[in-house]
Amino acid sequence: MPARVTVDLFMGTSKYPFFAEPIVANRIAIAGATGAVGKLVRQMLESRDFPYDSIKFLASKRSAGSTIEFKGQPHTVELLRPEAFDDIDLVIGSTPDDVAAEFAPWAVQRGAVVVDESGYHRMLDHVPLVVPEVNPDAITGHKGIIASPNCSTTQMVVAMKPIHDAARIKRVVVSTYQATSGAGVKGQADLTDGSRAALEGNRHHYQAFSHPIAFNVIPQIGSHKHDGYTSEELKMLYETQKIFGDESIQVCPTCVRVPVSNCHSESILVETETPISPQQARELFAAAKGITVVDDLEAGEYPMPSNCDDQDDVFVGRIRKDLSCENGLAFWCVSDNLRKGAATNAVQIAELLVSEKYSACGSSS
Amino acid sequence: MPARVTVDLFMGTSKYPFFAEPIVANRIAIAGATGAVGKLVRQMLESRDFPYDSIKFLASKRSAGSTIEFKGQPHTVELLRPEAFDDIDLVIGSTPDDVAAEFAPWAVQRGAVVVDESGYHRMLDHVPLVVPEVNPDAITGHKGIIASPNCSTTQMVVAMKPIHDAARIKRVVVSTYQATSGAGVKGQADLTDGSRAALEGNRHHYQAFSHPIAFNVIPQIGSHKHDGYTSEELKMLYETQKIFGDESIQVCPTCVRVPVSNCHSESILVETETPISPQQARELFAAAKGITVVDDLEAGEYPMPSNCDDQDDVFVGRIRKDLSCENGLAFWCVSDNLRKGAATNAVQIAELLVSEKYSACGSSS
Repeated sequence: MPARVTVDLFMGTSKYPFFAEPIVANRIAIAGATGAVGKLVRQMLESRDFPYDSIKFLASKRSAGSTIEFKGQPHTVELLRPEAFDDIDLVIGSTPDDVAAEFAPWAVQRGAVVVDESGYHRMLDHVPLVVPEVNPDAITGHKGIIASPNCSTTQMVVAMKPIHDAARIKRVVVSTYQATSGAGVKGQADLTDGSRAALEGNRHHYQAFSHPIAFNVIPQIGSHKHDGYTSEELKMLYETQKIFGDESIQVCPTCVRVPVSNCHSESILVETETPISPQQARELFAAAKGITVVDDLEAGEYPMPSNCDDQDDVFVGRIRKDLSCENGLAFWCVSDNLRKGAATNAVQIAELLVSEKYSACGSSS
Repeated sequence: MPARVTVDLFMGTSKYPFFAEPIVANRIAIAGATGAVGKLVRQMLESRDFPYDSIKFLASKRSAGSTIEFKGQPHTVELLRPEAFDDIDLVIGSTPDDVAAEFAPWAVQRGAVVVDESGYHRMLDHVPLVVPEVNPDAITGHKGIIASPNCSTTQMVVAMKPIHDAARIKRVVVSTYQATSGAGVKGQADLTDGSRAALEGNRHHYQAFSHPIAFNVIPQIGSHKHDGYTSEELKMLYETQKIFGDESIQVCPTCVRVPVSNCHSESILVETETPISPQQARELFAAAKGITVVDDLEAGEYPMPSNCDDQDDVFVGRIRKDLSCENGLAFWCVSDNLRKGAATNAVQIAELLVSEKYSACGSSS
């Protein structure tokens, strides 16, 4: 039985108690290492001093062969192919769905564990969908793949967690204000180039969006799925239920793209089983792992993309009683969708995973 | 008793049946004639061929003396002062609250009726708050002033009306995506100049906003009022209740400024007493005065600022069943906040008013 130790999963600012040995070295691979999120994963592994014996960086044909620097050393990016996972223990994947569908089995068949940021595996029964602040225990049931949720879901469930623990959330109504970085580097370029063109009175041919995003809002993210909902909206429903392990939690989502480069914002209303005052909620948020409260309306202080960019926490403000129902609490939530919405959460899962792994080793030895 | 005639209040596209004589001439004054909304009021009076015997244009010291063209004729803008309302029957006012507070009594004391777009009189007991598609009858109780609602309220109540009539709305949860034109010409200039500066890597000193609006969203419109709500949010609650004459209608509002030049968007969830299907709702919206339905998610068709600008209707799309409660209906609503949110609604009230006035004259003669 390993000793109960505290593993620092939260950037040195907060502690999550876990039955595990301290994190130890490993043979790791970063799949999709050259993309925007892959780059952030690399930065986080460096800054958080993630332990490893060996590390390799994998990418598609287009980027394979290029050189990237990691911890001051040059590394050649290798081609993402089955043999790349020989002798690999842990993979962090920041790839599109179709790439994840292909490479994850290659890695698992060779004995590696995959932390997958794509949407491909999230809703599969045998794949835990994990946000370390919310359901770290779910990781123990993994069969080789652990999924990280959709960015808009991740920040919402982090914010829901302390309220749910205290008063049980029955229903969430959420309207999102999602940044163009959620549509990748092309999305961000569309915003910049489209805005510049609009200011000069020119037209821009958009690559990532089917409507102009400059000085406009688009009430569609993802494709039409069913019942008038988009894929992005249904992710916010089904992923939330899976993460909390509670299909009775109801979600009414509206996902909207706004002309912001990075950081998703969300207008959230939760209805709870038992009442909770704004002051109680504020204290619960403030005490929660991974949440920073910015909430002084009189002073004009609240989270915005402009003050949450490039940070790992989920930021909460505008905390107030919903005037329209008995046990309703309204708040505003902003987070860096490339960090906590993707890279940060994946690296936190990886940290949790190697802790859990070595904990399991410890108890069997 | 006048004959029942149809007065065209809705730009020739739809008809509102009203017990009145056709609109007849009048002596009218436009207060705040040189502002952005005042300019639209002038355009609408021209394009809708609003009947009058004489017309004058009033503005503050800064603009008085300048010349504007109306129906091909030059008009000198007169100073907004008490005597300007001598021999005036009808005033349409597009001024800030403090200006409206001062000039409206001058006009009423001289026997004029004022249609006021400012927020100053809206919640006064003796002042009808009117949206012609929703509560035209309220106009009959006026004591000299009729108020036009806040822009974010107006488009919402127009969209609520057909659903409320069919199934009684008990509760609304609304998150707004409001354009910078709601903060006036300075707001729009802030967006343009701030965006240009940001693209060039420069800082911009914002005039209308206390935070950068370029490539950002600001979850505050108006000042902090009470219970963590802003003035803009409380307007959406209290004005909605007053317009429907029903304080049992509950509203949970979150008002957010987005980097859009013109047209407010709203993510709306209504909970009704009796069930209503999305298809029924779509038909009701389509048949309603002042509403245009744009709703084909598979084809990527829905209202956006980019396709609703410079139009008078309220546009509705993304109509779907709320998955999170029994009688919930979610939809997306966009409207030109300077037009239906201000100028159009005021001119429609004025049209209603002169109809009503002459109807009253007719019945007493």
